[in-house]
Amino acid sequence: MAVETGRMPADLREKAAVLDAKDPLAEFKQRFLVDEPDLLYADGNSLGRLPASTASLADRVLRQEWGAGLIRSWSDWVDLPFAAGDLLATAVLGALPGEVLVADSTTVNLYKLACAAISLVPGRRRILIEADNFPTDHYVLSGIAQERGLELVEMPVDIDQGLALETLAEYFDDDTAFACLSAISYRSGARIDMARANAIAASAGSRIIWDLSHAGGSIKVDLSGTGSELAIGCTYKYLNAGPGAPAYLYVRSDLIPVVQSPVRGWFSQAEQFEMESDYNPRAGIGRFGAGTPNILGTALVAQGAELIGEAGIENLEGKAASLTDLFIHAVDRLLAPHSFKVCSPREAPLRGSHVTLGHPRARTVSRTLIEEARVVPDFRTPDRIRFGFAPLYTSHAEVVEIVARIAQLEASGRF
Amino acid sequence: MAVETGRMPADLREKAAVLDAKDPLAEFKQRFLVDEPDLLYADGNSLGRLPASTASLADRVLRQEWGAGLIRSWSDWVDLPFAAGDLLATAVLGALPGEVLVADSTTVNLYKLACAAISLVPGRRRILIEADNFPTDHYVLSGIAQERGLELVEMPVDIDQGLALETLAEYFDDDTAFACLSAISYRSGARIDMARANAIAASAGSRIIWDLSHAGGSIKVDLSGTGSELAIGCTYKYLNAGPGAPAYLYVRSDLIPVVQSPVRGWFSQAEQFEMESDYNPRAGIGRFGAGTPNILGTALVAQGAELIGEAGIENLEGKAASLTDLFIHAVDRLLAPHSFKVCSPREAPLRGSHVTLGHPRARTVSRTLIEEARVVPDFRTPDRIRFGFAPLYTSHAEVVEIVARIAQLEASGRF
Repeated sequence: MAVETGRMPADLREKAAVLDAKDPLAEFKQRFLVDEPDLLYADGNSLGRLPASTASLADRVLRQEWGAGLIRSWSDWVDLPFAAGDLLATAVLGALPGEVLVADSTTVNLYKLACAAISLVPGRRRILIEADNFPTDHYVLSGIAQERGLELVEMPVDIDQGLALETLAEYFDDDTAFACLSAISYRSGARIDMARANAIAASAGSRIIWDLSHAGGSIKVDLSGTGSELAIGCTYKYLNAGPGAPAYLYVRSDLIPVVQSPVRGWFSQAEQFEMESDYNPRAGIGRFGAGTPNILGTALVAQGAELIGEAGIENLEGKAASLTDLFIHAVDRLLAPHSFKVCSPREAPLRGSHVTLGHPRARTVSRTLIEEARVVPDFRTPDRIRFGFAPLYTSHAEVVEIVARIAQLEASGRF
Repeated sequence: MAVETGRMPADLREKAAVLDAKDPLAEFKQRFLVDEPDLLYADGNSLGRLPASTASLADRVLRQEWGAGLIRSWSDWVDLPFAAGDLLATAVLGALPGEVLVADSTTVNLYKLACAAISLVPGRRRILIEADNFPTDHYVLSGIAQERGLELVEMPVDIDQGLALETLAEYFDDDTAFACLSAISYRSGARIDMARANAIAASAGSRIIWDLSHAGGSIKVDLSGTGSELAIGCTYKYLNAGPGAPAYLYVRSDLIPVVQSPVRGWFSQAEQFEMESDYNPRAGIGRFGAGTPNILGTALVAQGAELIGEAGIENLEGKAASLTDLFIHAVDRLLAPHSFKVCSPREAPLRGSHVTLGHPRARTVSRTLIEEARVVPDFRTPDRIRFGFAPLYTSHAEVVEIVARIAQLEASGRF
């Protein structure tokens, strides 16, 4: 079997086998279309795999709903962004039905919510962002700050451990409109305590826009329980909705009536098919819609959320911890003596479902793994290699085999 | 054959047969998946049909590119929004390669270009819109106007004949930032002379943002030849890319370096995979990208544009004229005596590929046609029924049969 070709102490393989044997999610791998069984895919945190049910659903949406139903299908399609949002809210994000909408891209959704957040505290002139937040978040906010004469303030972070709550408390003040933070850092996988961060924001009369891109589907987010007010996230990572699938946004129910989207569109209009020229935003989360929603993409998001719901987000978080714990343990034993270092938090509750290794020749390591070892990680500048272990379809055996293959290449002097 | 059940003078059926016999596009209907051959679909201007090649392509993108290729496919996908844009530019819109990008929705793209247009003439305080432009255009612009303290001015139109150039000339002044006009009016199908309209705008040192949603794929748009500077449009009508497929935007090449998008994102960043925090927009049309593009949707847009290119936009425009001429002729003979009136321009060069009928009980007529006559038109408030004749897959026989079925219901007292 391909998943046993590398060098690996027998006890680690046994440990993986034991963990896989009691894995409540073990059967889920069969729910995905896996083309190359010997490929070790450690990049589900960039692009999740294709669920078999998604491929069937896409075919049905295309041929039956669009091809055969034609325009008549819109009577169902108009509800889809809400239905998909409700699924995400309840199965994935710990929010209430009616608080999540599937729409646009993460970038566009951040733009909308950032403008909305500014309108909640007119006159405040500072926007906070963690220095190592995902680039698109920096770009969106620097554009808004420049346009409106606000100041975008970068908060220093430990690039491996993430943003410290003490730093956040230092930076939030009564001139802060909002902060934009990732629940799970894209580079290190570091996880922040959302409840405590929200409390810090609230004590300054401010709030946080959460970027959940690396969190949704990998950890128990619990938007309601943590007191979160605004959030956005993508669906093509742990939600397995496909490349560039529509994103989502969350607005806590009490805020929905008091904020509006800067991008008004006919899908944010009340009674949209009356085709009035005057704008009158919808009462609910639909006011953050804009143009005609991408139906095929939204259907795939709903399918991805269903699968997460079926697996159970607690099971997924538990398995993410188990996979990443095992990876770090194996790296410590086999790779740490060879210039690899763990650049992610070592305690499972402090990270998500990916682990980042540092290596002076990270780009070469990453390329060699892909080309010669059938391991697919994700290179990140300047010297990092991310290993994402999507808990829905990754086994512990695969995790140790990845380390084994790296060790083998290392032993052959390939890096 | 189902397409001959209604009442129709024999000479009209013969005329349709003659026109179909010499139709250079006749074979294209077979390129679409048609589920109910007796259904007369007159709503391709709301949602185009599913091309067979699109269904196959979707399957390939899903199963091969995403399912099997996984993250590795991104090395090809990153070019897709540009490649699809180039296809649209050259095959559909009469623009240059590098001037069109497939991205986001029509609404979001209008938002981006409207902000860009304002930045070109800082200090100008008026935005013009035709009073009967599509609602989303009103909403987008009223939001921007309100946010920035500008004035959105509605220009009066003849609801059946569209905006008069004289009106446009009256309203454009040296305080006008831009006007937003539809090349083909969504309600009446009225077509405006884009070259003369652009010249009027230019003489005021201003410009037009063209909404091409009802024009792209139905008429020869010729963005370059008409001196157009900015345009947006959707792809789910005559471009047959599916419900809510990604939209496009056009910026004339000389303007690209001097405008920016208000919605900065990692897909508008130069060297995006360097993951720098500082924003540095791409040199080309890509600076109007934002978040991760929807790959499946973009692939279907490219496929739709290919089909248009294969048919030839001149052929499509010619057939649109022929189909709508025949429809008006048949309506005049059979329906005009019965409270139906043509609410679209009567001269083919003054309209697009749909014709609107007025009827005091339009909602009932529309519903009855769908439920009892297997004719699918599109009701539009308050008293209009739109008949869209997508030239790629509609025959002249179908056009006369639609009128025949309406006449038959009319004769039975069903309205």
